[in-house]
Amino acid sequence: MDKNALRTLSYGLYIVSSFKGDKMNGQIANTVIQTTSKPYTIAVAINKENLTHECMTASGVFSVSVLSIDAAMKLIGTFGFKCGRDIDKFADLKYKIGVTKAPIVLEDSLACLEAKIIDKIDLSTHTIFVGEVVEAEVLAKGEPMTYAYYHNVKGGKTPQKAASFIEEAVKAGPKKEKSMFRYVCSICGYTYDPATGDPGNGVPPGTPFEDLPADWACPICGASKDKFDRE
Amino acid sequence: MDKNALRTLSYGLYIVSSFKGDKMNGQIANTVIQTTSKPYTIAVAINKENLTHECMTASGVFSVSVLSIDAAMKLIGTFGFKCGRDIDKFADLKYKIGVTKAPIVLEDSLACLEAKIIDKIDLSTHTIFVGEVVEAEVLAKGEPMTYAYYHNVKGGKTPQKAASFIEEAVKAGPKKEKSMFRYVCSICGYTYDPATGDPGNGVPPGTPFEDLPADWACPICGASKDKFDRE
Repeated sequence: MDKNALRTLSYGLYIVSSFKGDKMNGQIANTVIQTTSKPYTIAVAINKENLTHECMTASGVFSVSVLSIDAAMKLIGTFGFKCGRDIDKFADLKYKIGVTKAPIVLEDSLACLEAKIIDKIDLSTHTIFVGEVVEAEVLAKGEPMTYAYYHNVKGGKTPQKAASFIEEAVKAGPKKEKSMFRYVCSICGYTYDPATGDPGNGVPPGTPFEDLPADWACPICGASKDKFDRE
Repeated sequence: MDKNALRTLSYGLYIVSSFKGDKMNGQIANTVIQTTSKPYTIAVAINKENLTHECMTASGVFSVSVLSIDAAMKLIGTFGFKCGRDIDKFADLKYKIGVTKAPIVLEDSLACLEAKIIDKIDLSTHTIFVGEVVEAEVLAKGEPMTYAYYHNVKGGKTPQKAASFIEEAVKAGPKKEKSMFRYVCSICGYTYDPATGDPGNGVPPGTPFEDLPADWACPICGASKDKFDRE
């Protein structure tokens, strides 16, 4: 079985949010699909260990924000690689409370949906939640962020707890010049490639990792330079 | 509720195939997602009226072929807009029989997967099938066809029975010059736009529908000119 075949499946990139009592949480998900049109229903697979799973199970509702192709990597880092048990992901963020009382991320989002959970499938590590759409809104014109764009253009990684996680084979590449070593963030898996640099944060292509300023931080999860390991 | 929000969800484009006794069938689907990685499972929503649904229910297995961005519209037309009860979709087609005994379309496909159904959710018009991946293969290098590309670049339409069907509002556009009228295929919904022409079949942009050769046929489903209605 060549698991690389699974990498050819296509997805969008979304923030799925919900609440439990006073606690709001949300997380990045790529597995949102429309499942019927009479009535309009959507489905999403969520890891059982995630706080969002706990919130969805408790409240029976969830929202989906459709991320724009221009969405900030910091937003994706906060919702994809940090845990809502440690931080308030909605602090300093543009969001609203929907008709289902679920929080809805508006920042960098083209559209949002709210759904009431009507069914689910319990799998090994994830639950597939099916929700009937009760509210839907287009927020802005633009191109939706796709999972492929996030990986190929933005250099993003897949968290281990994602439905679409695929274990990496150990790479045994050729030796490189010191200045061209790539460094991997131990927190979120982002790879700093000196050939690409980090133009979004003023680091031009060709900048060795060693030459990055001391206060440079992972553009995805905000981790400091000492959290990076040579690839 | 603005159902246009649902149009911002992103998908790939796949052929899902299965069998029942001696009958093989397959259909276009866009809702294939990976749902867990331990074990590797995938899910797909299939319309209950479709022969593929009947085959999947009978055999308990299915295959997924990941279509290339270069996939022929005729292939998509055959598997997306024709019924396996009327024709043998696998005639004159490159395919193989997999370890699950499900047929697997190889034509215009970048990768294929085979799965044994382990669970399902019964919705109003569709069933979400969850399958454990038992075989997976990369067939070719290339870019996967996305649903957005199929719609925006290839001019493809969504069949009424698709999970992601969204009812169209009646359009009341401005009157146009005769030569610029668009014509819609009554079989599959493909729209012939004279501004675009049908370059894949030697019809240059700017060709009025009326000037198309008598033997011109719908590039998606193969319907003849008389099956087209003025928009």
